[in-house]
Amino acid sequence: MSYDTFGTLFRVTTFGESHGVAVGVVIDGMPSGFELDIEAVQRDLNRRRPGTSRYVSAREESDRVEVLSGLFEGRTTGAPVAMMVRNESARPENYDELKELFRPGHADYGVQARYGVRDHRGGGRLSGRETVARVAAGAVAKQFLESLGVEVSGFVRRIGGVRAESVDLAYARKSEIQCPDPEAEARMIEAIESAVAERDSIGGLVEVWATGVPAGLGDPVFMKLDAQIAWGCMSIGGVKGVEIGDGFALADMRGSEANDQFKDGFELDTNRCGGIVGGISAGAPIVVRLAVKPTSSIGKPQRMARTDGSVVEHALEGRHDPCLCPRIAVVAEAMVAIVLLDAWLRRSSVVKNS
Amino acid sequence: MSYDTFGTLFRVTTFGESHGVAVGVVIDGMPSGFELDIEAVQRDLNRRRPGTSRYVSAREESDRVEVLSGLFEGRTTGAPVAMMVRNESARPENYDELKELFRPGHADYGVQARYGVRDHRGGGRLSGRETVARVAAGAVAKQFLESLGVEVSGFVRRIGGVRAESVDLAYARKSEIQCPDPEAEARMIEAIESAVAERDSIGGLVEVWATGVPAGLGDPVFMKLDAQIAWGCMSIGGVKGVEIGDGFALADMRGSEANDQFKDGFELDTNRCGGIVGGISAGAPIVVRLAVKPTSSIGKPQRMARTDGSVVEHALEGRHDPCLCPRIAVVAEAMVAIVLLDAWLRRSSVVKNS
Amino acid sequence: MSYDTFGTLFRVTTFGESHGVAVGVVIDGMPSGFELDIEAVQRDLNRRRPGTSRYVSAREESDRVEVLSGLFEGRTTGAPVAMMVRNESARPENYDELKELFRPGHADYGVQARYGVRDHRGGGRLSGRETVARVAAGAVAKQFLESLGVEVSGFVRRIGGVRAESVDLAYARKSEIQCPDPEAEARMIEAIESAVAERDSIGGLVEVWATGVPAGLGDPVFMKLDAQIAWGCMSIGGVKGVEIGDGFALADMRGSEANDQFKDGFELDTNRCGGIVGGISAGAPIVVRLAVKPTSSIGKPQRMARTDGSVVEHALEGRHDPCLCPRIAVVAEAMVAIVLLDAWLRRSSVVKNS
Amino acid sequence: MSYDTFGTLFRVTTFGESHGVAVGVVIDGMPSGFELDIEAVQRDLNRRRPGTSRYVSAREESDRVEVLSGLFEGRTTGAPVAMMVRNESARPENYDELKELFRPGHADYGVQARYGVRDHRGGGRLSGRETVARVAAGAVAKQFLESLGVEVSGFVRRIGGVRAESVDLAYARKSEIQCPDPEAEARMIEAIESAVAERDSIGGLVEVWATGVPAGLGDPVFMKLDAQIAWGCMSIGGVKGVEIGDGFALADMRGSEANDQFKDGFELDTNRCGGIVGGISAGAPIVVRLAVKPTSSIGKPQRMARTDGSVVEHALEGRHDPCLCPRIAVVAEAMVAIVLLDAWLRRSSVVKNS
Repeated sequence: MSYDTFGTLFRVTTFGESHGVAVGVVIDGMPSGFELDIEAVQRDLNRRRPGTSRYVSAREESDRVEVLSGLFEGRTTGAPVAMMVRNESARPENYDELKELFRPGHADYGVQARYGVRDHRGGGRLSGRETVARVAAGAVAKQFLESLGVEVSGFVRRIGGVRAESVDLAYARKSEIQCPDPEAEARMIEAIESAVAERDSIGGLVEVWATGVPAGLGDPVFMKLDAQIAWGCMSIGGVKGVEIGDGFALADMRGSEANDQFKDGFELDTNRCGGIVGGISAGAPIVVRLAVKPTSSIGKPQRMARTDGSVVEHALEGRHDPCLCPRIAVVAEAMVAIVLLDAWLRRSSVVKNS
Repeated sequence: MSYDTFGTLFRVTTFGESHGVAVGVVIDGMPSGFELDIEAVQRDLNRRRPGTSRYVSAREESDRVEVLSGLFEGRTTGAPVAMMVRNESARPENYDELKELFRPGHADYGVQARYGVRDHRGGGRLSGRETVARVAAGAVAKQFLESLGVEVSGFVRRIGGVRAESVDLAYARKSEIQCPDPEAEARMIEAIESAVAERDSIGGLVEVWATGVPAGLGDPVFMKLDAQIAWGCMSIGGVKGVEIGDGFALADMRGSEANDQFKDGFELDTNRCGGIVGGISAGAPIVVRLAVKPTSSIGKPQRMARTDGSVVEHALEGRHDPCLCPRIAVVAEAMVAIVLLDAWLRRSSVVKNS
Repeated sequence: MSYDTFGTLFRVTTFGESHGVAVGVVIDGMPSGFELDIEAVQRDLNRRRPGTSRYVSAREESDRVEVLSGLFEGRTTGAPVAMMVRNESARPENYDELKELFRPGHADYGVQARYGVRDHRGGGRLSGRETVARVAAGAVAKQFLESLGVEVSGFVRRIGGVRAESVDLAYARKSEIQCPDPEAEARMIEAIESAVAERDSIGGLVEVWATGVPAGLGDPVFMKLDAQIAWGCMSIGGVKGVEIGDGFALADMRGSEANDQFKDGFELDTNRCGGIVGGISAGAPIVVRLAVKPTSSIGKPQRMARTDGSVVEHALEGRHDPCLCPRIAVVAEAMVAIVLLDAWLRRSSVVKNS
Repeated sequence: MSYDTFGTLFRVTTFGESHGVAVGVVIDGMPSGFELDIEAVQRDLNRRRPGTSRYVSAREESDRVEVLSGLFEGRTTGAPVAMMVRNESARPENYDELKELFRPGHADYGVQARYGVRDHRGGGRLSGRETVARVAAGAVAKQFLESLGVEVSGFVRRIGGVRAESVDLAYARKSEIQCPDPEAEARMIEAIESAVAERDSIGGLVEVWATGVPAGLGDPVFMKLDAQIAWGCMSIGGVKGVEIGDGFALADMRGSEANDQFKDGFELDTNRCGGIVGGISAGAPIVVRLAVKPTSSIGKPQRMARTDGSVVEHALEGRHDPCLCPRIAVVAEAMVAIVLLDAWLRRSSVVKNS
C-alpha cells in the first residue's frame, strides 16, 4: 500500500512534487560498508536534468544532490541512504491557464476524479520531476552492481521513426539525446526539431541493456525479474509498453524459431529471450524496450475539457520537452538497476540458507 | 518480499506446485457480506483447464474448486477467502528424461543457478499450473467488479499471424481457443494444427478489455494502474511484452495524433491511451495487450545443455500446449481484474478521508 | 495491509475461521532442501489441541495436519509450504444465544462497530481456533531453528497466583497444563478446578525461552527483535502485556543494577535484559513473559449489552477453557520461533553483501 | 522487509542517524486537503528535544523542522509529507573512548555481531536521535486525530518508585519531565537528582492515553490494535515491557473480576481492558503502559568487554539522560497516534465496501 515505495530488500521511497520545496529519496536496505561516489550520482542527475539542451524542457534546475543520511567518511553505514535535490525553478504561475482545463493526454481529469481535488500547478507527484529521486537511487544501485560486474545502460533506440542501427554505449552517455549511433543521432535531432517547428511533440523507443548479469536472478511467481522490470518501467510517465528481448515479435514466431538454444556450456546461441527465461536471468544480456508516447503538452490547439464539462479549443504555453525519450532513457536505466540489485540481494539471502 | 503475494488491499497469496498435492489461493481483504457465486469461479477454472480441447495440454484435471474459509451461507465473512484445487493428474515420471537436461526456452538453467537445486518434474512454482490460483482469485474479483458495473474480458487477438478483426466477447467465452471472431477462429485453429503437425508450437497476442471502469482508478508513482497491470501480466509465464492502448504504435506518432482529445463532457474522441492516462483511469475502456511467445516445449529436436555443460540434440516428449494464448487469455483477465479491484478499494479508502 | 500475514522473509499467512471448513497457513520464504518432520508439526498441534484435558475447552478436534504444497519426498522445495487442518467439531448452533448479545471481555461489540456485521458463531477470525495455523507455522520454524542450534520453549509460569519456581522444560512438554514445575503443577490445577467449580475462569503468566540464539539477530528501528516479538505475542487473543527479561521490574531499578555487565569474553554475568539489548540479541537466552487475562467466557451471570443497547444479566453456556495459559504457551512459542527464524534469514541476507 | 517503515495506510519511513547530517521522515498516505499546523509539530519536537532541562541529555539541538514536500498553502496535497531536522550538535569525537569497548546495556556488541562493523559514534540508527522523526510523524497523526475528536497524550507515571497519583494532562505537557501530578513531580525530580549525584541513572513507567476513540478500530489477527501498539512502543529504545489496561495485573484475576461489564448502552462500567478487547477498540479510553529501563550509559565504573574479548572496568563520559522517561513519553504518544490513525484509515477503506 505504498504509493511511494518500490523494491523488497533494496527499497526505494521517493518524496517531493513538481512545485514544492524539494524531491528526494530514502533507500532502505543498501548494504553497509560500500564506498559511494556521490559525484557519479550527480552525473546521472545531470544526464536527466532539464535545461541541458534544446531537446528537453527549458526549466532550469541545477539539481545538486545532498546526502542526508547513510554515509560516513564516504562509506554507507547501513542506515537508510537519504538524498535530496531542491527545486529551484518551480514556476507554478505558469500553470494558471490550467486551473479550469483538463489537458488531453494528461492525468488532469483522472486525478480530479480520483482525489476530488487537483493541483493544477503541473503534475504534482505525477510530474516527471519525481523521477529525479529514482535516478539518484538508481545511480546508487548501479555503483553496487558495477562492483559485481554488472553494467546497466539506457539509451534511445528510435525517435520519430529514425532507428539507431549501431549501439555505442559510451557515445550515448555523452549524446545530448542519449543516442548510441552518431549517424542516427543527427537525423533524430532533425525529427525533434521538425516537431518543435510545428509546435508538436514526438515519441520513440528507449532501450535498457544490462550486461554481466549472471544466470539465476529473479524469483518465482510475482517476483519474476521481467515482471518487476515491467512494473518499474511502466510506472514512468509516458511509457505505454514494455517488452523483453524480441518481445512482441515473438508472438508471430514458432517455438523452433523463438527458443534460444544452447551452444557451448550454458551459453545461448541467440538472445531472443532478452536475457530472461521463465522470469529468471539466463546469463545473457538483459534487453528491455520501452514504448514512449509523444509528450502530451503541445503548442498546437487541441480540444480540452473545462471543469464544467464544456469543450474548448486551446493551445498550451509553457516549457515542455518536445520528446521524452532522452530523459526516460536515464530513468529507465535507474529502474532496471534497482530491480536487478533487489533481485541480487534476494538471491544472497536464500542460497545461504538452502 | 513476498514471492507469492500480489495486491495491496485486495491481496492474493497463491500456493501449490505443478506436481504437488494441490494449488490454491488465500485472498486477504475481500469485502465482507458479498454474495459469492462459486459456480462462476468454477466456470473460469474450466475455461483455463487443460484437457478441454485439442489445442491445449492433454493433462487431465477436473479442477474442482473447494472453498476452505471466508464464506458463510454463501456470503463472504471478511475472513480470508481460501480456495483450493487438488492436482489429480500429476505425472512426475513423465519428466524423467529431464533430470540432466536444461531445456531451451525454459527456466531450468536459471532455476538451477538461482537455487542450486532443481525440481525437474515440470516447472514447480513456475509451472502454468500455478495460474489456477490466480484464475480463482480473479473470478472473485470479477464478481465484485460486476456488482460495480465493471466487466473484464480476456480473449485471443492473434495466433500465428491470424488476427481477430471483430470482437464478440460472448463468442470468445465459448470459443475453444477464446477467440472473439468466428471467422478468424477457424484460421487460428488451422495455424495451431499446422504447428502441431510439425511438432512445433506457435505464439500470439492476447488482449484484455475492461469496460465500465470509471475515471479515477490508480494512484501516483509506483501504484499507477498501468504499472500494476504490467507487473501482473508480465508475471504470467510465456508473456514477453505488455502494452496499453496503442502501445508501441504510439512511439512513432506525433503528440497531435497520439493525444485523445475531449469531445463531449469528459468523453474522449479516441482511445489511443487504452483507458489509462498518467497511470490513472480516464473513463474509457481499458485495453491491455500481451505478447505471448510460442510454447517452449516442442517435439522438434533442439540443442539442449546437460548438467555437465555438454550440449546435446534432443526432442521432448510429453503433454504440452501447442499455443499458450487460449489459457493465458483467462489468466490475464484474472490479473487485470485483481489490479482493478485493488485500485477500487484503495480509492474508497482515500476519498472518504480527504 | 495484510491482516493475515506476519514476517518479512519467513512470511506466514493464515486462513480459516472458528466455524468454517478449515484453518490453515501458507509459509512463504521457507528455505528449500530442508527435511521437514511433519509428525513434529502434529505433536505441536496436539499440545495446542482442545479436548485433551479437563483444563482446556472440551471442543473435540483431531487436528490432523495435511500438507498442501512445498514438500517433495520429505524435503521443502522452495515453493510455499501450505498446511491445513479441517474443522470437525464446529457447532455454530451453540452460539444461538449470542445473536443479540455482546459479551463482556469479548470483541463482539467492537467487531460490530468495525464491520457493521458480526458472525455470532464464535469469534470467526478472532477465535483461538486461528492459532492452529500459527502453531503449524511455528513448528516448521522451530525445526529449522533446531538445525541451527536454537531451542524455543513456551511454558506456564504462573496460574492463579501459583508460580512455577523451577523450570524443567521436558516436564512442561508433557504436562497437561504446560507447567515446568511438578510441584507447582498440582497447585495450579487446584486453582483452575476451583475456578471451574465457581463457574469462573483464571489468568496467569506464560513464558517463552529461546536458548542457543547467537548475538546479532534483530535489526534497527521497527525490526528490533523485541518489537517483533511484542507484536507477535500481543496479537494472541487474551494477552494483555508482554515484557522482555526483567521487564517491568527494570522500571524501578538504577542503571548500575539493571545493566548486565560482561564477565568473560562477551558473556553477560546476569540476564536482566532477557537476551535482547537495543533490539538485537545479545548471546544470552531470550526470555519473554506474557500476561494472560482470565478467559472472558464464564458461566457466572454478567451484565451484557443487547444489540438494542439495553443491558441484561446473563450467564453463558458452552465449551470454554477455564484458563487460556496452557494453550497460549504453545502459541507464544510458535510466534517467538517465527520471529527468530525471520530475523535469522534477514541476517543471512545482509552479512553476505556487506 | 522495511527496517525503516511502520504502518499500512498511514506509512511512516524514517531516515537519519545520530551523528549524520539530518534525521527525517516521509509519510505516505496522509489524507489530502488537511490543514497542517507545522508549529504544532515543532512544539512536540521541543517537548522531546534534548538540552531543555537538567533532566535530559545536555546535547544542544534546536531541532527546527523543515517540510520538504506534501504541503501547499498550508494544506496537504496527497504527496508524501516529508520533514527533516538537521543535526547540529553531533560530536562524534566524544565517542572515541568507545572504539574498542562494548558498553553494558547497549547494543554495541549485538550490532558488531549483526553487521560485522560498528559505528562507535553513538547509536547510529539505534540512537534516540532517530525518534525525532517519529515525533514529527506522530504530531501530524495527532492533528488529524484531533479533527476526528481523538486526543492522544503521553506522560510519566512513575520514576524511581515515585508514582503520579493524579493525572492532569495539561500540566504534564508543560512539566519539564512530562509528569501529570505536581506533587509527584517534585519527588520524581529528587529521585533523578539523587541518581545523577551518584553518577547513576533511573527507570520508570510511561503511560499513553487516547480518549475519544470510537469502538471499532483495529483488525483481526496481526493487525489487532494492541498488537500494533505493542510493536510500535517496544521499538522505542529503552522500553522493556508494554501492557494494555490493567495488563500484568489481570494475570492474577478471575474472569468475573477482569471482565468489564456493560452498564448503559454500550458503555463499560470499568476499564480494565484499557479500551481494547480482542484487538479492537471498545469505545473506552485506550490506556498503554511502558516499562522503561534506566539509561544504560552511566558514569559509574562498569565491567565492559573490549573488542579482543578481555573485560575491563570503565566509567563512561559524555552527555546522557539520567532518565529516559520524559522523552519516551513524547515518543510513545507519537507511536500510539500513528497506530490509531492507521487503523482509522483502514476502517474507512473497508466499511465503505461492505
